Amino acid sequence: MPSLADTLRQRREWLAALIDFPVLLWSGVRPARNFPANQYPFRASSHFLYFAGLPLERSAIQLQNGRMTLFLDDPSPAAALWHGTAPTRDQIAAQIGADAAYPYAELMPTEDPRDPSLLEVSKWAMEAATIGLPSPVRDAQSDMLDRTVEAPNIPNVVDVQLARAIVSLRMQHDSTAVESIKAAVQATLEAHRVGMQVTTTVTTEAGVRAAMEQVLMTHNMTTAYNSIVTIQGEVLHNEHYHHPLTAGDLLLVDVGAETATGWAADVTRTWPVSGQFSPTQRAVYDVVLAAHDAAIAAMAPGVEYRDIHLLACRHLAAGLVELGILQGQPDGLVEQDAHALFFPHGIGHLLGLDVHDMEDLGDLAGYAEGRQRSNRFGLGYLRLDRPLQPQMIVTIEPGFYQVPALLNDPQRRHQYRDVVNWERLEQFADVRGIRIEDDVLLTESGVEILTQDLPTQAVAIEQLVQSGRI
Amino acid sequence: MPSLADTLRQRREWLAALIDFPVLLWSGVRPARNFPANQYPFRASSHFLYFAGLPLERSAIQLQNGRMTLFLDDPSPAAALWHGTAPTRDQIAAQIGADAAYPYAELMPTEDPRDPSLLEVSKWAMEAATIGLPSPVRDAQSDMLDRTVEAPNIPNVVDVQLARAIVSLRMQHDSTAVESIKAAVQATLEAHRVGMQVTTTVTTEAGVRAAMEQVLMTHNMTTAYNSIVTIQGEVLHNEHYHHPLTAGDLLLVDVGAETATGWAADVTRTWPVSGQFSPTQRAVYDVVLAAHDAAIAAMAPGVEYRDIHLLACRHLAAGLVELGILQGQPDGLVEQDAHALFFPHGIGHLLGLDVHDMEDLGDLAGYAEGRQRSNRFGLGYLRLDRPLQPQMIVTIEPGFYQVPALLNDPQRRHQYRDVVNWERLEQFADVRGIRIEDDVLLTESGVEILTQDLPTQAVAIEQLVQSGRI
Ligand SMILES: [Mn+2]
Ligand SMILES: [Mn+2]
Repeated sequence: MPSLADTLRQRREWLAALIDFPVLLWSGVRPARNFPANQYPFRASSHFLYFAGLPLERSAIQLQNGRMTLFLDDPSPAAALWHGTAPTRDQIAAQIGADAAYPYAELMPTEDPRDPSLLEVSKWAMEAATIGLPSPVRDAQSDMLDRTVEAPNIPNVVDVQLARAIVSLRMQHDSTAVESIKAAVQATLEAHRVGMQVTTTVTTEAGVRAAMEQVLMTHNMTTAYNSIVTIQGEVLHNEHYHHPLTAGDLLLVDVGAETATGWAADVTRTWPVSGQFSPTQRAVYDVVLAAHDAAIAAMAPGVEYRDIHLLACRHLAAGLVELGILQGQPDGLVEQDAHALFFPHGIGHLLGLDVHDMEDLGDLAGYAEGRQRSNRFGLGYLRLDRPLQPQMIVTIEPGFYQVPALLNDPQRRHQYRDVVNWERLEQFADVRGIRIEDDVLLTESGVEILTQDLPTQAVAIEQLVQSGRI
Repeated sequence: MPSLADTLRQRREWLAALIDFPVLLWSGVRPARNFPANQYPFRASSHFLYFAGLPLERSAIQLQNGRMTLFLDDPSPAAALWHGTAPTRDQIAAQIGADAAYPYAELMPTEDPRDPSLLEVSKWAMEAATIGLPSPVRDAQSDMLDRTVEAPNIPNVVDVQLARAIVSLRMQHDSTAVESIKAAVQATLEAHRVGMQVTTTVTTEAGVRAAMEQVLMTHNMTTAYNSIVTIQGEVLHNEHYHHPLTAGDLLLVDVGAETATGWAADVTRTWPVSGQFSPTQRAVYDVVLAAHDAAIAAMAPGVEYRDIHLLACRHLAAGLVELGILQGQPDGLVEQDAHALFFPHGIGHLLGLDVHDMEDLGDLAGYAEGRQRSNRFGLGYLRLDRPLQPQMIVTIEPGFYQVPALLNDPQRRHQYRDVVNWERLEQFADVRGIRIEDDVLLTESGVEILTQDLPTQAVAIEQLVQSGRI
C-alpha cells in the first residue's frame, strides 16, 4: 500500500492534469447540537478528505499545480487542557505530505492599513475555485423541494470545472480508497452477523441496532448514515427503533460503517425475527434475490447502470408474475412502471467517501453529461445513470415493499387495475419490506462483490439468526 | 403524573405570569453531515422542547397569555413513502394541548399584492420575543474566543426579558422534568454498570464506550454529550477511544443519557482497568471522594453553590496535604488557587434539557444577576454561581488531574514552588485523572442524590469491575 502522503500526492497530480487554476477546500466545523459547546461529532467535507486525508477541524487546503498548502492552527494552550496534546501543524503537514503549512488566519482577507474598509483578498483565495459546504438554510430549502438547491451566485465557471474534475477522480477509486472501503465493509459485515445473532435474544428494533452499532464503535468507526433497523421495511428511510420484535416479522436492516477517514460501506439484509421465513416471505425474498443476482451477473465495465436497473426490474416483475401478484409480460410491466408499485427506488448508487457518493453536487456525479432524471415513476429515483467504469464502487439493492401510500392510492389502483392481482397480494400481507444490498467494485473485466462474505441466501440467513439462540 | 398536555399548559401559565408579550420559539432543523440528505440525528431546541414537549422537526410555537399555537406541516405524500405515516398536525396539537394549529408557512411574512417588494410581517411574528438558535458561524467564533458570542443586534429588550423568564422556569424543575431526568439517570447507571463489567473483557477504550452506548440505544435514548471514556483522564474533554486498556490504568468514564424528549443525565465514574486500584490511585481516589461527599453533605436550599465549590476545593487541598503532595493550610492553599493545579474546573453545573443547562444563554442561567465570572484561576471555570433553590438539579463532580500543560508550565512551577512537593508528586504518576460525578436534586429541606444507586466507594467499584471477569 502507498503511504498516505503518496496517495494524496498522486491525487493532486491527477487533479493538476485536469485543471490549471488554484483550488481551496475547507474541512468545515462541527455544528452545535443544543448549545454551542455541545457539538455533533465532527465530519469533514468529503472533498477535503479526498485530498487532505485526515479529518482536520477548522482547516483548509490550497491545491495548485500538484502542490498542497495546509492552513491549520496549532493547538492552543487552552485546547491542551480540555482536549489534550495534539499533533502540531508541522507534524500533520509532514504526515499528509503538504508542501507548505500556515495558520488558518493566513487565509483571511487582510485590511488595507490606509483604509480599513478595503479588504484585500488573501493571495491564497485569489482566483481559487471551491466547492460549497452544506448550509443549514439551503439544506432546509432543498429538503422541502426534494432536490438540491444551489446558492444563486453559482455556477461559477471555475467551481463547475473543479466539481467535474473531482467527480472524474472520486468516481474511479484508487487502491487506498478501495482498501479503506473494504475496511468499512469488514466492520459492517461483522455488525450484520451480530445483528442476526442477537435478534432472538433482544426484544425491540433498538436492541438489534444497539448491538450492531456497538460493533462499529468498538472498531472506532461510526455509521455512514442513520441506521435503518425496522419491522416496517416498507418505510424506506425509517429512523425509529421502538417497535417490539414479533415472531412473524421480517426485520429490514440497512447499516453501514464509516472509517475514521470517512470511507463508507452500505449493506442491507432482511431476516426473519423468528429465524424462519414464512412461505410467503421466502417466496418474495427469493424473487428479490434473483433480481439482485441477475443485476450483479450483468455488471461489467461499459455496461449502462440504467440497464442494470431495468434488468433487475424485469426480474422482479417476472418473479411477481410467477407468484401471481402481477399479470402480464415482464417487459411490458416494466415499461408501464408496474414494478415500481413494489420497488419505487433505484437499483443503487455510487459509494465512496459519501454513502451516496458526491450527492452534495446534485446529479453531477450520478448522471453522465447531458443526461437528466427521468420523470417516469419507475426511473425518477435512479441515482446513477452512467456507463460503469473500472474502479467504480456501486451498490446493488433491489427490494420489494408494500407501501400503503402507493398501493392504496386510488389513482394508481385504477391505473394498474389489470396488472395487479389485488386479492392474491393480500395473501402476502406478512411481507412488508425486503431489501438485499451489496457493495460491488468494478474491475477491468468484471466485478468484485466486496460484501460477498455475508450470505444472501435465505437458508444461510436463517442459520445465522438461529445460531444466536441461547 | 400529569399528562404531557397538562404539564405544558402549566409551564405556559407560569410564563404568562412573568411576561406579557407574545413569544415565538422554533424547533430547528437537522444539520447536514456530509451532504444535504445525510443528516445528523435531529435535536430540537431545548427552549422549544420545554414548552412543546415533543421533538417536532421544522416547527414553531407561539405562546401568548397561556395559549399555545403550533406551526407544523402535515406529512407530505413523498414523506409517507420515505418516512412512513406520521401523526397529523391536529393529532400532535391534541397530544401537546395546543390551542390552535396551522401549517408552518403561516408564520412566513406575506407579500403586499400592490407592491411585492413590501413584505408584511405575519401577525404571529409581530412583536414576538424569541431565543436565537445556534448559528454555525457564530458558534465557530464562540469556539475560537472560548465564550458565547451573540449576534450584534441583540440584546433586544423583549428577548432578554424572555430569556430571564425562561431561566427562572427551567431552573426549578417541575415533576415531569424530574421524572424525565430520573429516566435518563436510570439508563445511565445501567450503562455505567455494564461499562465496569466489560472492562476486563474488552481491549480498548472504544470497547467500553460501545458497550455503554449500546445500553442507551437499547433504551431508545442517545448520549446527552459526546462520551468521555479514556485512560487519559487528565484530558478533560477527550473524545478519542483508541487507546488499549492496560492493567495499571485508571479509566475515566463520563457518559450520560438523553431521553427522547431531550432530558439529560451526566454521570462520571473512574475505575481501575484491572479491577484493583493501586495504593496511590486509591489514596487520591479517596481524597476526591471525600471532597465529593462533603460537597453534597453541605448542599441545601439557600446555600451558595460557589461555597460548595470552595468547600470541595478545601477538602481536596486538605487531602493532598495529607498525601504530602501539597504543603500548607487548606484555606490558604485554596485562596492562592493551589488546588486548581489539580482541579482546574468547577464543582458542577445546572442539569436539565441541556447537560450544561441553558448554556446557550451564556451565563444568564448560571450566574445570579449582577454576578460575573471570576478571573481567578481557581474560579473562572465555575459554571454556576447562585444560591441553591428547591427543584434545581446540579452536578457535583470534583476531580484530580495531572495535566502536563498546567504542571509543566514554568511560570506556575515557580509560583507554586513552595506549596507543591514535586518529588512526592512523582510517586503518583499512575494517577492521571479521576472524577466522580453525581446528579443532585435540591428538595425543600435538603437533597436527593439521583445517581445514588451507582456506588462511589472504591471497594464497591472494584467489585463491579471484577464481577465482569469471565
Ligand atoms: Mn444504499
Ligand atoms: Mn458534568
